[in-house]
Amino acid sequence: MKSLLIINAGSSSLKFAVFNLPLVKDAPSVYRGQIDGIGANTQFVAKDIDGKTLLDTIIKSPEGTDLEAQQELALTTLLSWIEEQKVELAAVGHRVLQGGEKYSAPVVVTPEVFKVLETFIPLGPLHQPHNLRPIRVLAAKYPNLPQVACFDTAFHRTQPWQAQTYAIPRKITAEGVKRYGFHGSSYDYISRQLPEVIGDKSHGSVIIAHMGNGASMAALHDCKCVATSMGFTAIEGLMMGTRTGSIDPGVLLYMMDTHGYGPKEISNFLYKESGLLGVSGISQDCRTLEASDAPEAKEALELFCYRAAREIGSLMMAAGGLEALVFTGGIGENSQFVRNKVVGYLEWMGAKIDPELNKIRGKAHCISTADSKITLAVIPTNEEWMIAHHTTSLLGL
Amino acid sequence: MKSLLIINAGSSSLKFAVFNLPLVKDAPSVYRGQIDGIGANTQFVAKDIDGKTLLDTIIKSPEGTDLEAQQELALTTLLSWIEEQKVELAAVGHRVLQGGEKYSAPVVVTPEVFKVLETFIPLGPLHQPHNLRPIRVLAAKYPNLPQVACFDTAFHRTQPWQAQTYAIPRKITAEGVKRYGFHGSSYDYISRQLPEVIGDKSHGSVIIAHMGNGASMAALHDCKCVATSMGFTAIEGLMMGTRTGSIDPGVLLYMMDTHGYGPKEISNFLYKESGLLGVSGISQDCRTLEASDAPEAKEALELFCYRAAREIGSLMMAAGGLEALVFTGGIGENSQFVRNKVVGYLEWMGAKIDPELNKIRGKAHCISTADSKITLAVIPTNEEWMIAHHTTSLLGL
Repeated sequence: MKSLLIINAGSSSLKFAVFNLPLVKDAPSVYRGQIDGIGANTQFVAKDIDGKTLLDTIIKSPEGTDLEAQQELALTTLLSWIEEQKVELAAVGHRVLQGGEKYSAPVVVTPEVFKVLETFIPLGPLHQPHNLRPIRVLAAKYPNLPQVACFDTAFHRTQPWQAQTYAIPRKITAEGVKRYGFHGSSYDYISRQLPEVIGDKSHGSVIIAHMGNGASMAALHDCKCVATSMGFTAIEGLMMGTRTGSIDPGVLLYMMDTHGYGPKEISNFLYKESGLLGVSGISQDCRTLEASDAPEAKEALELFCYRAAREIGSLMMAAGGLEALVFTGGIGENSQFVRNKVVGYLEWMGAKIDPELNKIRGKAHCISTADSKITLAVIPTNEEWMIAHHTTSLLGL
Repeated sequence: MKSLLIINAGSSSLKFAVFNLPLVKDAPSVYRGQIDGIGANTQFVAKDIDGKTLLDTIIKSPEGTDLEAQQELALTTLLSWIEEQKVELAAVGHRVLQGGEKYSAPVVVTPEVFKVLETFIPLGPLHQPHNLRPIRVLAAKYPNLPQVACFDTAFHRTQPWQAQTYAIPRKITAEGVKRYGFHGSSYDYISRQLPEVIGDKSHGSVIIAHMGNGASMAALHDCKCVATSMGFTAIEGLMMGTRTGSIDPGVLLYMMDTHGYGPKEISNFLYKESGLLGVSGISQDCRTLEASDAPEAKEALELFCYRAAREIGSLMMAAGGLEALVFTGGIGENSQFVRNKVVGYLEWMGAKIDPELNKIRGKAHCISTADSKITLAVIPTNEEWMIAHHTTSLLGL
């Protein structure tokens, strides 16, 4: 059977999903899993279509192997395992962070395209090189296997220039220091579900809140992005699991002056020590915090919701209104508490959540009352399927 | 005649105003002026009540004098000049950046208070030491002269904790890394004018846009601050004359990695090279940009207004609505273009500006149409008078 492999590769992890061809709308992946802890203890877990674990093993690298070699070993181990499953790969789709200003849609990766994608590494040094490495390895190993890159940034290329531009010297903007926005495959997927779930309101001003361990929002008008909360990097905007979200840049000057922080400490502070984890001192996981009685856990969750509401206000101005608000992502799909609290800040605009509808899980549905002036909905996202869809469409599979 | 001296001292400048006692509501200062270029070419300009220049002279320091001695010389030169005008000082009021979490109102500066104010220097190293130096010099020279400190932060102490807290590790928050907000004397002044200008709406949700070379906004409910756009420092929030306002902190990591920026270059980038100046490449002055035909000038102004509208949206959520929007500060009071453009983004909420009323200058007045759903107003600010008022009130003068 011919299949598609979808890869989301980071520095220390590689997530994958396998879809059978022809790709059916919202088809589940036949295999999925991830390789974690690359560079330390590399663990490979694979599951079948029902979520049953087929494999849970440690990948051992020879002593002294560098990170790059270990990343390559993780990929080749995955490919061998896929072959063992009698899967014949027809194409591979990759999640790639940065498509820069050039790519507003997925693209088939030719050697020329690959060179362009490498030029975006300075814009995303923590992700872009790791997203690109599997493409290079696969191209060398299987030169006839078509590969497609789907960019986190592509969906947001419709933003007007005001939404993309920082108030910085023009020459720095010209280098590409702009608000790109991320989570594009998720927004792309949700935007395609909107007509079915919220009807005609999908043509108006809609805010999608993608809240997971990384969290962002996008304001859409007629299903096109007009603004998003993440910016040049995935730090800006909402409070996240371990990231600060937007913060006075003067705080960084203070950390340099008073704590002697250099770029590495600043990076850890912004990406790893803050957000829900930093404020609660307990966990980055929304579920753990909701289950906790500690006042610090409650504070972290309340701050998360307050910040989300403030961001909705800001995005509303970019969209010129708010007809619908859609929750997605791990927290957005599963936390009744967060949805309820965020919508509470919109009460003055006439938004009303239905407590019974807010309890329903696992399907796309509206959660607003009949008389709510703003339509509220939950739509489970499916980034892997979206990448699979683009891969088949582009390649005519 | 007994008088009050109001001082706003920075690193390289010292602004002053002299008010006669008893202080009458909205009385003009009998003398005002500033000493600029301290540390380079120190220029001393003083004007009378009608704005006529009484003095325009260079203050010469002996060769090799350090900055601190030059700052002291500027102050003593000012005091000598004031004595020559036969002014007898009854008290001095100072604009001080940081009152920390302790001071939510102006305070008479005793030696004990002074020691507390010094502990806030790490929170505002660019301003606080320069605000405090004249207090120390005056206390040594005139131990019986009462001095009052009015804090830029005090007005914002009513913000709920959510508005004050960054999503950073708790121990950093506990050090005082919070959103303080600034321009407090201006908001204090405007909030007291609100009932007269906008009537009962002053009890509701009001946003004040203080837009000058530094620019910020505050959301008020019943004349008390519930959120403000500036944060730990005066960088956060709106785009300004030369400051970035809010920016993805990841941009700073990029500038360190790619341009080799250290703390000093980062500071210049954030405070001095960005904003209207950086985007236009022409000027930081809104009037110059409005008069220019260059597309870059137009872009800078449009970005300024777009960012202001986004901030209004965010603040609206903190205030739970928007009944009135008030413009103040150099740009807010004088730029028809900016007011018109910013209100344009609120049209979907039913805000309507009256083009004729928008033309009127120099007085507090409404600029919205009769059927506008949001009251729009311009109120000229008067920070010096506000500080003078607090000084007389606290001292019973």
